[in-house]
Amino acid sequence: MNGILVVGSVALDSVKTTAGKSIEALGGSATYFALAASYFTEVALVGVVGSDFPNEHRSTLERRGVDLAGLKAAKGKTFRWAGTYGKEASIAKTLATHLNVFKEFKPVLSEAQRKMPVVFLANIDPELQAEVLAQMKGPALVACDTMNYWIESKPAAIKKLLTKVDVFFSNDQEAMRLTGAPNALQAAEVLADWGPSVVVIKKGEHGALMKVGAKFFVFPAYPLARIKDPTGAGDTFAGGFLGYLASSNSYKDVEHLKRAMAYGTTMASFNVQDFSTKNIEALERDLIDERLHDFTDRLTVPRADEFLKGRRAVTA
Amino acid sequence: MNGILVVGSVALDSVKTTAGKSIEALGGSATYFALAASYFTEVALVGVVGSDFPNEHRSTLERRGVDLAGLKAAKGKTFRWAGTYGKEASIAKTLATHLNVFKEFKPVLSEAQRKMPVVFLANIDPELQAEVLAQMKGPALVACDTMNYWIESKPAAIKKLLTKVDVFFSNDQEAMRLTGAPNALQAAEVLADWGPSVVVIKKGEHGALMKVGAKFFVFPAYPLARIKDPTGAGDTFAGGFLGYLASSNSYKDVEHLKRAMAYGTTMASFNVQDFSTKNIEALERDLIDERLHDFTDRLTVPRADEFLKGRRAVTA
Repeated sequence: MNGILVVGSVALDSVKTTAGKSIEALGGSATYFALAASYFTEVALVGVVGSDFPNEHRSTLERRGVDLAGLKAAKGKTFRWAGTYGKEASIAKTLATHLNVFKEFKPVLSEAQRKMPVVFLANIDPELQAEVLAQMKGPALVACDTMNYWIESKPAAIKKLLTKVDVFFSNDQEAMRLTGAPNALQAAEVLADWGPSVVVIKKGEHGALMKVGAKFFVFPAYPLARIKDPTGAGDTFAGGFLGYLASSNSYKDVEHLKRAMAYGTTMASFNVQDFSTKNIEALERDLIDERLHDFTDRLTVPRADEFLKGRRAVTA
Repeated sequence: MNGILVVGSVALDSVKTTAGKSIEALGGSATYFALAASYFTEVALVGVVGSDFPNEHRSTLERRGVDLAGLKAAKGKTFRWAGTYGKEASIAKTLATHLNVFKEFKPVLSEAQRKMPVVFLANIDPELQAEVLAQMKGPALVACDTMNYWIESKPAAIKKLLTKVDVFFSNDQEAMRLTGAPNALQAAEVLADWGPSVVVIKKGEHGALMKVGAKFFVFPAYPLARIKDPTGAGDTFAGGFLGYLASSNSYKDVEHLKRAMAYGTTMASFNVQDFSTKNIEALERDLIDERLHDFTDRLTVPRADEFLKGRRAVTA
């Protein structure tokens, strides 16, 4: 089987932002990641939901071709999260977390899943991430994310996991907390020393940076003056990034990695324009590429010689 | 006379950062701006210093060809500022401000100065900025900056001034405070409504954004994991931006404006790598262009068709 295996949470989210609210909508790190990656490659999802998980949410994932053979339906309630965002839109205040069936999540991969070439370990317990990884049979690319809860409670397990990871995603606050570094760039240096050849640090409205070898590549966010719901933006970013990279079959080429950053940025920008997964569950690849080109064209500053020839004239 | 007229402060700064300190070193908004712009075009500086202003500082500006005919030496002491920066390097804590001779600053422009094509009104009293502008004889491009002190005390005067300004520079916190907008992009929208055809919002370590017409162009900062002293970075950015733009003789072309953003970013990055003006007082244009190209190359994500032809292969 080709494509990406993602292991993480599938949840029902209740969110309130300055733009409105959504109640028990489809959420979870594996959900956002899988939907975003599905525009680029095959995706198989491993997770658990309760017996109350609505069929329509299952259908949303299936319509995007996400393989749900690994989405276990357990007796009990689905993982629920409730949060609110103030004017500073990128910082969530958690109102409630009910792990429910997710508390007992112990994924056992099928033979087909073990053989997948790319794996994304979304932000679950780092010891569980390591157990999943140990089941894989020589994946070509291993990527993971984490979150504050695990940084506080199991930093040594994260550090140990990172020795086996190729691409590490983190947000800037988490990266600084995990490493003790005073800024995101120094945090990326420390994280790269711990193992991953590619470190991606997400900075919300300020974009994202990537460290590859000795070099940093920093990209802004796609400029949106108004957003509705930032929930899942980080996982959507990772889905666009890894989805593109998996489809490129070239995991170490800097130009592919830069395009992966641009695709991650583009997918995250669609996600924050509506609540829950509404805006990323029914996109078209053409629309994605159109925004990608708009994003990269705005960033392109041709060298003076190219510029004088007028080869890339753009008007506002 | 060609080039840019800058009206603003020339000061003696005492600064402490996590990287060290500097005592009574050359500073002031007009100083940083003039040095940065001097690599691109002629610069005439209008300001005032006291009788204690060291000749070596005057020489530093003169060596860069800055016209100091408008730098008045008044009886009394030079404007002094003292500040400190913590781990969050971009936020200064002011320890002392002594305006001294700057308190009585009432610039009267010479005939030659009134005829200059580009004017930059650095962050002085907005009523004084308007008085200076009233003396100008039909400049082709008017730019200004401001600061929190004037946003708190004279917001109406700033708003009135902006009706006569083409390019407005501000940092993100100031822009949000002045407009009441919840983020930098919306602040730029409001500011553009007030008059300037180009609004540039500086975000420190997170880069800068520009609004031209309906479109936003957002650029990251040049990635530096370690900086020594962020003092003057905003004015140095403006100097690189307007210096390049003045040299281009094309003030409305979007591609020139994007290059101006890249030059502003590049000059600011040199500035923060050492204390005071040390790193921008003796640069070479070649070094500037080399870093500019490094910066713009990292940001360039070629379209897939160009990419597949391998025309822009870059390795880390």
